[in-house]
Amino acid sequence: MKALKKRIRNIPDFPIKGIQFKDITTLLSDPASYQRAIDLMAHRHFQKGVEAVVGIEARGFVMGAAMAYKLGIGVILVRKAGKLPHKTVAAEYTLEYGKDRLEIHEDAVRPGMKVVVADDVLATGGTVSAVVDLLKRQGAVVVECCFLAELTDLRGREKLKGQKVFSLLKFRD
Amino acid sequence: MKALKKRIRNIPDFPIKGIQFKDITTLLSDPASYQRAIDLMAHRHFQKGVEAVVGIEARGFVMGAAMAYKLGIGVILVRKAGKLPHKTVAAEYTLEYGKDRLEIHEDAVRPGMKVVVADDVLATGGTVSAVVDLLKRQGAVVVECCFLAELTDLRGREKLKGQKVFSLLKFRD
Repeated sequence: MKALKKRIRNIPDFPIKGIQFKDITTLLSDPASYQRAIDLMAHRHFQKGVEAVVGIEARGFVMGAAMAYKLGIGVILVRKAGKLPHKTVAAEYTLEYGKDRLEIHEDAVRPGMKVVVADDVLATGGTVSAVVDLLKRQGAVVVECCFLAELTDLRGREKLKGQKVFSLLKFRD
Repeated sequence: MKALKKRIRNIPDFPIKGIQFKDITTLLSDPASYQRAIDLMAHRHFQKGVEAVVGIEARGFVMGAAMAYKLGIGVILVRKAGKLPHKTVAAEYTLEYGKDRLEIHEDAVRPGMKVVVADDVLATGGTVSAVVDLLKRQGAVVVECCFLAELTDLRGREKLKGQKVFSLLKFRD
């Protein structure tokens, strides 16, 4: 994992002072690193009956789309408010630096449907725990929340108690 | 292509009256349709020296990430203003219903680098032509602009003159 970690660029004080932002674009644009990261995130879900990967806007679309393609299943989009054109159900959540609202099409998941949630970085866990609640309210079974990277000091896992969580790369700050 | 076209849901009057919005989420969440669409969009670029797929925020991230994964290359993100953490170069463009600004990391492409631009829908072509200009200014060679769907009546191709354009599914309205 060391080689993959090195491909992530640290940007101090973005988007506000004091935040060490993990820039994943440098990993995504490196062919070998990108392929390896997606393989490692996807392989653990092979032949376990997962029916879709749920990608969270916007960088979660990258992880979710590639993982779903690799797994031979579909990808479901969770989007910022007002972006999805059909009838939606929504969840509000608190960000590391702000507040926001996410939506999913009301017919995107069926009761009992097994899904994996994908995003790029697990920080405080506010976003993904809102998405998990939303999916459960719709009757989906969230098999795992799967991240490229995790900022362990922000303790996002605590917000996801009772939920299986996987992160490929762990950062202390 | 008929089976794939049927998987796209038409939403009248979204986001404003008079627009027939093509909802691609119903195609993306269907495993066979999603796999087939990505295969058909990616296969044409196999072994032609393409070094990266450029995905346009946000639904272009889905197409771009999956295509790049399939092709064994990296994915480069073009994002809305203020989203990319490192130094960026920007392009302004006019949308079908509004104005906006896109950015790319200034070190995302090298001079002479062969890239394919991916997005979900070619409408008026304003967004993608701004992205093509931006990439060319950075010295990239844009091999093709590749779309899941095209709204042919909006004549986006005319804005992309001199540029190779491919769309998998064509809609008249």
